[in-house]
Amino acid sequence: MGSVALRAIVLIAMTTPFVGCQTFSRPGPVAQAPRVDAARGMASADGKTTWYDALDIGVEGRGWSEGLKHSYDRFPAEAEGKIPDPVWNLSHHSAGINVRFMTDSPSVSVRWSLREDRIAMPHMPATGVSGVDLYVKHEGRWGWIGTGFPEKKEGNEAVLASGLPAGMHEYRMYFPLYNGTEKLEIGIAQGSTITTNPGYGARYEKPMLFWGSSILHGACASRPGMAYPSIIGRRMERPVINLGFSGNGRMDPPIVELISRLDVSVYVIDCCPNMDPALITERTEPLVKTLRAARPDTPIVLVENVPYEKGWFLDASKDSYVKKNEALHAAYTRLRNGGVRRLYYIPCDEFFGDDHDATVDGVHPNDIGFLRMADAIEPSLRRVLSRK
Amino acid sequence: MGSVALRAIVLIAMTTPFVGCQTFSRPGPVAQAPRVDAARGMASADGKTTWYDALDIGVEGRGWSEGLKHSYDRFPAEAEGKIPDPVWNLSHHSAGINVRFMTDSPSVSVRWSLREDRIAMPHMPATGVSGVDLYVKHEGRWGWIGTGFPEKKEGNEAVLASGLPAGMHEYRMYFPLYNGTEKLEIGIAQGSTITTNPGYGARYEKPMLFWGSSILHGACASRPGMAYPSIIGRRMERPVINLGFSGNGRMDPPIVELISRLDVSVYVIDCCPNMDPALITERTEPLVKTLRAARPDTPIVLVENVPYEKGWFLDASKDSYVKKNEALHAAYTRLRNGGVRRLYYIPCDEFFGDDHDATVDGVHPNDIGFLRMADAIEPSLRRVLSRK
Repeated sequence: MGSVALRAIVLIAMTTPFVGCQTFSRPGPVAQAPRVDAARGMASADGKTTWYDALDIGVEGRGWSEGLKHSYDRFPAEAEGKIPDPVWNLSHHSAGINVRFMTDSPSVSVRWSLREDRIAMPHMPATGVSGVDLYVKHEGRWGWIGTGFPEKKEGNEAVLASGLPAGMHEYRMYFPLYNGTEKLEIGIAQGSTITTNPGYGARYEKPMLFWGSSILHGACASRPGMAYPSIIGRRMERPVINLGFSGNGRMDPPIVELISRLDVSVYVIDCCPNMDPALITERTEPLVKTLRAARPDTPIVLVENVPYEKGWFLDASKDSYVKKNEALHAAYTRLRNGGVRRLYYIPCDEFFGDDHDATVDGVHPNDIGFLRMADAIEPSLRRVLSRK
Repeated sequence: MGSVALRAIVLIAMTTPFVGCQTFSRPGPVAQAPRVDAARGMASADGKTTWYDALDIGVEGRGWSEGLKHSYDRFPAEAEGKIPDPVWNLSHHSAGINVRFMTDSPSVSVRWSLREDRIAMPHMPATGVSGVDLYVKHEGRWGWIGTGFPEKKEGNEAVLASGLPAGMHEYRMYFPLYNGTEKLEIGIAQGSTITTNPGYGARYEKPMLFWGSSILHGACASRPGMAYPSIIGRRMERPVINLGFSGNGRMDPPIVELISRLDVSVYVIDCCPNMDPALITERTEPLVKTLRAARPDTPIVLVENVPYEKGWFLDASKDSYVKKNEALHAAYTRLRNGGVRRLYYIPCDEFFGDDHDATVDGVHPNDIGFLRMADAIEPSLRRVLSRK
């Protein structure tokens, strides 16, 4: 309990490590990993595809890999009843969870089942809410290569990419953001090889933990890879834990206690959109002090509320986020003045640009907004993580 | 028939023009317009809101305002049976249609009914498919201010903005992209003033006509204002006609004949995504020659196929758009060598950037892709339209 496990919870038979695959010049995964035991694969009826459960490959993005009520919950079973019920329920959504592997298959397919019937939201398409997203790494950089369109709760299936170049390539497949994932399997061509998660090497193994609101949760990305923590994770080549809870990222003390158990590289706190100034004032200092007491050296980053897009024209809209950010900054200043080390603050000025087109509804970023948030936040996180 | 009317087809009673409203430094609408006759308004049950039909205000974005089977069709009734049935059916979608007005109301509401039950697509949210989008002009620039979320086919209603600053402001409301609009009404506070469409002044009155595929049609914008012709129209402060037809923008000769009747400022032909190289070779020259014969001085712009996002990694994907663009460029070269004047060509290189994250599915832009397409195409159109 409480360990940050990036590997599968299912103990898999290890075979000879695959060798001879490409290497990367940037800090990144060791591009070698044990093959998944072929005996774990299940042949399709026509024999052309072999399916592997993501749990046999090694999922990323979970804070807990043991003590779970469901393999793709974002909180352990013990959290139920301790944390607010809405957060517990939203923790069933697989935001940020992904599976990484290498394969020489000429095609990559997916089949997956969801936990809720509601596969889309009015302002977020089914591809983002309940779809899957495939990236491939090439010359040290991740690039999109396929989207799985969900059609129903159970039994979705899609060929995400075919005609792939020969040789081993490294892939990352993102799970649905705003639905639970009941089960997810990766399909490769019969006879191809698939490896377990190649990891990051010792220096980069600790994940970055993000905690926040619907925005962090991924609303309203067009597909799962576009949530801003996912973009940052790809760019920085570090694992990410997404603890976004729509309407419910409120710095609740029981959740602070839970995440304080995780040995992460950084805590990124992006809860303001779900809090009013008084609650921000009340909870920011206890949150930081609890995390600092449990993790004396782990950086803590406070993120300002996004600048609501109506704020450029409506004073009330601007006031609402400015007042929250004043409360957050005041708490930050008190903490810094009180001697709290390794505490950082990211202002919102650059989050949405200046064309007022970065959201779908004034609050929730579209893909433009998420890209700009990643652009604004990534450099700060790089600086934070480069300091010792 | 065949005239490009930007005003309502309903003859409205003109009252004293509103005076004293703001002026703009950039080329733009004459910020004066006749008030809509208050007798056209319908009071809400509680008396707080007065509703005006968009047709009484003056819609933009239609090539034809007379001879229509439905007020918000994009082709006249006579087209039925002459043009391919799928195009006729898709012409019921209100892509690009919008209504422009000035009001001093402290709030702007909308109620609208749709023509199809299907209010979303798997890769495009209901807000883009069937929603409405409100922009307001401030200091010479359009900025987003409200999105209407659709819930059902009939009887959607939303307050798009409230607490608006005092004084007259100019608004533009975009209709649903991928659904038909049965009826759309604008709601203002009881006692407020609303004007008819203020127009553009004589120099800018002719619309830019875009003809193309699902991409032009607006897939997959998060909301209607993000389709790339809409972005360009706002920036250039010119009216736009969107003739995007999902899967069916194929340079069909009967449609060439129809659009040749329209006195537009430019024809932008963006049909390649729905054509193979052979069809591009077959139809591009007749299209240009027909338009040039009918409109000796109107610029014609040929737009390359978007660079499919899988093309960075999959040769077959890259080949498919490169071959189309080779066919288009060859036709363009033959036409230029044949002496066709005012014919222009926009290459696709800058359409999607280089991060491979500009689409939802490799073909259809997300909002990032649409913004980049607008960035790439707008400067070319400005140059084209500045030449005499």
